[in-house]
Amino acid sequence: MKHDLGAHELIPREEILSRIVNLQRRMEEKEIDLALLVQNVDLFYFTGTIQNGYLLIPQGKAPIFFVQKDYGRTVLETPLKCFKMNSFKDLPHHLREHGLEGKRTGMELDVIPVALFSRIRDLFPQWEISSISDEVKELRSVKSDFEIRQIKASGQIITEVFSRVKDHLREGMSEVELDGILTSVGRSLGHQGFLRMRGLNQEMMNIHVLSGETAAISPFADIPMGGCGVTPAIGQGSSLKKINRDEPVVIDYGGGYNGYVTDETRVFVLGHLKDHFQRAYRVALNILQATEAFAKAGEYPSRIYERAVEIATREGLAENFMGYGEAKVSFVGHGLGLEINELPIISKGGRRRLQPGMVFAFEPKFVFPGEGAVGVELDYIVREDGLERVTRFPKEIVYV
Amino acid sequence: MKHDLGAHELIPREEILSRIVNLQRRMEEKEIDLALLVQNVDLFYFTGTIQNGYLLIPQGKAPIFFVQKDYGRTVLETPLKCFKMNSFKDLPHHLREHGLEGKRTGMELDVIPVALFSRIRDLFPQWEISSISDEVKELRSVKSDFEIRQIKASGQIITEVFSRVKDHLREGMSEVELDGILTSVGRSLGHQGFLRMRGLNQEMMNIHVLSGETAAISPFADIPMGGCGVTPAIGQGSSLKKINRDEPVVIDYGGGYNGYVTDETRVFVLGHLKDHFQRAYRVALNILQATEAFAKAGEYPSRIYERAVEIATREGLAENFMGYGEAKVSFVGHGLGLEINELPIISKGGRRRLQPGMVFAFEPKFVFPGEGAVGVELDYIVREDGLERVTRFPKEIVYV
Repeated sequence: MKHDLGAHELIPREEILSRIVNLQRRMEEKEIDLALLVQNVDLFYFTGTIQNGYLLIPQGKAPIFFVQKDYGRTVLETPLKCFKMNSFKDLPHHLREHGLEGKRTGMELDVIPVALFSRIRDLFPQWEISSISDEVKELRSVKSDFEIRQIKASGQIITEVFSRVKDHLREGMSEVELDGILTSVGRSLGHQGFLRMRGLNQEMMNIHVLSGETAAISPFADIPMGGCGVTPAIGQGSSLKKINRDEPVVIDYGGGYNGYVTDETRVFVLGHLKDHFQRAYRVALNILQATEAFAKAGEYPSRIYERAVEIATREGLAENFMGYGEAKVSFVGHGLGLEINELPIISKGGRRRLQPGMVFAFEPKFVFPGEGAVGVELDYIVREDGLERVTRFPKEIVYV
Repeated sequence: MKHDLGAHELIPREEILSRIVNLQRRMEEKEIDLALLVQNVDLFYFTGTIQNGYLLIPQGKAPIFFVQKDYGRTVLETPLKCFKMNSFKDLPHHLREHGLEGKRTGMELDVIPVALFSRIRDLFPQWEISSISDEVKELRSVKSDFEIRQIKASGQIITEVFSRVKDHLREGMSEVELDGILTSVGRSLGHQGFLRMRGLNQEMMNIHVLSGETAAISPFADIPMGGCGVTPAIGQGSSLKKINRDEPVVIDYGGGYNGYVTDETRVFVLGHLKDHFQRAYRVALNILQATEAFAKAGEYPSRIYERAVEIATREGLAENFMGYGEAKVSFVGHGLGLEINELPIISKGGRRRLQPGMVFAFEPKFVFPGEGAVGVELDYIVREDGLERVTRFPKEIVYV
């Protein structure tokens, strides 16, 4: 039914089966004999659907998806064996019937709430439960060709949306007004509607339009800039502030296509920009170029981070780099995929080598307190011989 | 700083203090001597900010908000005593210093992930931890005058957005295209940008534009209609389907103002609508009127639900009411506030009387499989003598 309505492509059957096999291999290394997955994003990755249910992946046997709702949609979307479950309480019975009696069981302990965990614990007192979150996140960090295609389609939405900014940016309009127009452009191109970020309290908006001082407000989230938002209840994003001439308008936009998130930033100006902003922007582009000149599969994220800090420091911009004062963050890039906070993290502590197929957003940004911010964000695919850009290299600041 | 940028009103100091006292009263009843709150929505309710930190509310003493980020914003937004915390691991030390050594401690076990819980458990091995989620949710279900004002402002966004549909709805446009335009209208009116739903995997979009058959696709969520979405990775919301003449276009839109969510549905048509849709729509309006005629503070939600089912059944529409077949849901309304799935639930099992100040969305809807759906959703404030509408009573179907 979904196909008739022009929905995005399903994950190929072979791909889902190979993801399952890869997880089973990790389970074997960790001596886990059964995995129980419930988070919708992980379900999508391993089944192809986010319909509501419990995915059981045993060691060395075929997985079964126990579906609560909607069964009819689920069987259209996943190649896996499905079983229709009426009540959560029947799960032990169904597992026994299907020979899925694990002992060492892995669960997504980074996201499962205590109350749900306790209910599961009560149903399966014999289980020794440990976390399988890291294994899932590491697997998901290396993207297949199919995934890269979705990410590129997601990036195309970004390119198109940024190309339209000059048609809509006007002096005196509010940040939220431009936010709404650009969100609408993205949606009309088939943007999936929202972006996911893993974890409690992790909220992500489609777009941040930050002009002048709002870009320099310290964010509560672990990001270099977050904006003011229209209410302390949200505390991030575009605000009711009017956009003025001669101030940097930083637009951070997330594409969303078939589940896959991209995340890029560009700077626009009505009129002219003070020299120190222009200079900092060029340093951001230099950091991008310097990174492209050496980063590739096998490189340590920590080296990429350190090189970026080195350049910022050499240019006298160390204290503005990646936030100011106590709001400074300790990374310059983050993995992208079905969630916006995936592995790898391009940070000082990043000691696990980049692998081919990893995808990350790289975002050298400079914050000037009370004044504003400039910077760029570009998404990269890690290849054996270098970094492949998901979209085009950013131009100079766009003067409208 | 936020005020200069025209952000929404802060929660008054007296109101926050009275919320804290009310929670302390509930804690006393449950013999809990310390509450530790971390979810951003609960933090906003009890502090006035969603900045990142740990709120400690002891029995009979003043609470302290231990802030991780951003301290400067936090002290502008909350009247509570704040303490700047550098590392999570220092929490036991800080609590001792401030004389906050609880034993029976309440936490939001419905939303706190196991991994975070374990870290807290390790820091405070002496705590006997129990859930305080129900107490928080019950408190939050009764709205103050300040909250009702925010809810009415949220409802005004809905009214304005629905009034603009006739200017934009055109034959052959896709659902997501209209979705984008209307979202943009809402945002330009100061919509907060996203809506919150409590719990793992609970995702909510600003708007669902569902035309003809997409409104009849069974949703994975516990809602009467959810649409197709543009990808199985999202699985709900507006799709790429083109809007045709002579089919019901169901628009379910959520207002968002200063944290407060409203949630209403209207039906639009290009051309004419088949008789059975028209009839079902009038039955939905009849259910609204019948409910308004008797519901008020003191009434049981179960009685409201049963009365609605009775009317649907009398009109021969029982099997279409609130979903079809196995996708049918067992409620006809849900509480609204900072989250879209608050108390009360207007369901068969609703045995706790309505209280003055409760706010709920009431949504009699009829689903015709393979064809489409019609219905209305209107938000109500519970008063001593009846129900007060948050927005105007829905008109007949809007023919464009």
